[in-house]
Amino acid sequence: MKRENHKLHLSSRERIPADGSARKDGYELMGRIWIEGRDGTFLGYGRVVLLERIKEYGSISEAARSMDMSYRHAWELVDSINRQAKKPLIETATGGKGGGGARLTPAGEKAVSTFQDIHVRFRKFLEKEVLNVKI
Amino acid sequence: MKRENHKLHLSSRERIPADGSARKDGYELMGRIWIEGRDGTFLGYGRVVLLERIKEYGSISEAARSMDMSYRHAWELVDSINRQAKKPLIETATGGKGGGGARLTPAGEKAVSTFQDIHVRFRKFLEKEVLNVKI
Repeated sequence: MKRENHKLHLSSRERIPADGSARKDGYELMGRIWIEGRDGTFLGYGRVVLLERIKEYGSISEAARSMDMSYRHAWELVDSINRQAKKPLIETATGGKGGGGARLTPAGEKAVSTFQDIHVRFRKFLEKEVLNVKI
Repeated sequence: MKRENHKLHLSSRERIPADGSARKDGYELMGRIWIEGRDGTFLGYGRVVLLERIKEYGSISEAARSMDMSYRHAWELVDSINRQAKKPLIETATGGKGGGGARLTPAGEKAVSTFQDIHVRFRKFLEKEVLNVKI
């Protein structure tokens, strides 16, 4: 794939927002959710976006670049995620043309959709609860 | 009131946790909610605890001390809250024995219970949603 295609794809795809929020009467009910494992954060918004980008680009370095994240940081996140998951969510291949690549395992695909589904319901929760903010 | 009474009262009262969280299978679904106004944060967990303590102690300085917060910071929070609220949530009196005091207005009492009610439902949301974390 050429970079132009990536950009086009990126700009047209739907993204989950960093924070959930819902506004009413000048007040905004904000929120954030994340999943912790035994070493601290396991999956949060930023990590799930990284997984989505790895799926999209097939490469950790390209996924990192698309997020203005250093390769080193992306690798640390991938390592933290795989280390805490029951089964690895990202698998990498070395060698071959272009130096190998990375992709989500079936467990990784499921983790992304699980987080996104919970996040959608969280945003609905905020939209409903902001109506109770009468302050 | 004597400080001993304050301490007794503090240790026996129920508190809302800083973060909501719910645990399952080694994973914990964590979350945080807050209300923003035109200047940024209007009410979050820490600010609501400060309001509770002001109600309890009748004094901003004693409320601040009970939270290991500087008097200056507590005053800045009170100012930020009152400035962004439609009606003041905290009112202060100067003079008199002990140099005046502070208390919550009816709008302040309502704001505290509103936030707490939303927070209780948020914790229930997390407890329900953690059951969907099958990763």
